[in-house]
Amino acid sequence: MAPVGPRSGDAIFSSIDRVNAELFMLTYGAIVRQLLTDLEEVEEVNKQLDQMGYNIGIRLIDEFLAKSGVSRCVDFKETAEMIAKVGFKMFLGVTASVSSWEADGTCCSIILEDNPLVDFVELPDTCQGLYYCNVLSGVIRGALEMVSMKTEVTWTRDVLRGDDAYELQVKLLKQVAEEYPYKDDE
Amino acid sequence: MAPVGPRSGDAIFSSIDRVNAELFMLTYGAIVRQLLTDLEEVEEVNKQLDQMGYNIGIRLIDEFLAKSGVSRCVDFKETAEMIAKVGFKMFLGVTASVSSWEADGTCCSIILEDNPLVDFVELPDTCQGLYYCNVLSGVIRGALEMVSMKTEVTWTRDVLRGDDAYELQVKLLKQVAEEYPYKDDE
Repeated sequence: MAPVGPRSGDAIFSSIDRVNAELFMLTYGAIVRQLLTDLEEVEEVNKQLDQMGYNIGIRLIDEFLAKSGVSRCVDFKETAEMIAKVGFKMFLGVTASVSSWEADGTCCSIILEDNPLVDFVELPDTCQGLYYCNVLSGVIRGALEMVSMKTEVTWTRDVLRGDDAYELQVKLLKQVAEEYPYKDDE
Repeated sequence: MAPVGPRSGDAIFSSIDRVNAELFMLTYGAIVRQLLTDLEEVEEVNKQLDQMGYNIGIRLIDEFLAKSGVSRCVDFKETAEMIAKVGFKMFLGVTASVSSWEADGTCCSIILEDNPLVDFVELPDTCQGLYYCNVLSGVIRGALEMVSMKTEVTWTRDVLRGDDAYELQVKLLKQVAEEYPYKDDE
């Protein structure tokens, strides 16, 4: 019998409810446009997108834990791999890779091979300071906080800003002792 | 050989890029929350959601025409059926039905059997005038305008407001003569 363990991102992704990626991309674009209109300062828009992502992340973690079969990761390294290999696949249908680990294992980069948020997006000159995909950093930060990891998540490369890839730096600031907000059935 | 014709919503839906429905629902929830914070008046939020939907619809129609194989509908009746049977399936993964036709064929209802925007949503007392899903009416209005149909789309039933279903009334106001914004390859 195959051992019970986490399911692959592909397997989960094919078995859950989904919506059209183009609709999602356009809907996300509508949010960004709305915030740019309402908030004036690009820096404020970045903050708001991150905060929205955080609010999404603290709820999305439930779906992740319920559907993925992932229970507890042994360390931050395993956690980062889960985000890249299972999380991104499960929610956005894309894969990501982890690299650039610091020696103490508390900081790494997650590199997106494909980014469904940004098809056809071009930033006008007035928005050059915008981190268009800042919702993603917020989602990761929020989700990790729900499993007791305080993190700082920042964009280190962004194709919309002229870089050659999308890269998020995820830095573990503090790991709170075992007080999971979800019930462990084991 | 099978005749070339529109593909079924199911077939299209299974062949296109998709993202997790829960992520979409939470992202949409974040927009609504943001607008409620920024705009104060619920009526203004309804307008803004409709306008966002319109902006999404005028772009989403391209994806619809490109992927569905649907070319020109003979009349508004066929158009409404396409929205319900192909459009909703293709973008949200749900089916809808058309009913309550007026005798002259210019007004009908589209009833949603399932609505992936609203899982777990409850409106607080302060938001009782909100049409939470108003983005959808805007999408239909925008998409139809791009194929020369001026319409008025309004919610006539809304489960979040205590009704037993989600029902949109789609009323054809004016059909502009043949000037399609897309190239017809035939």
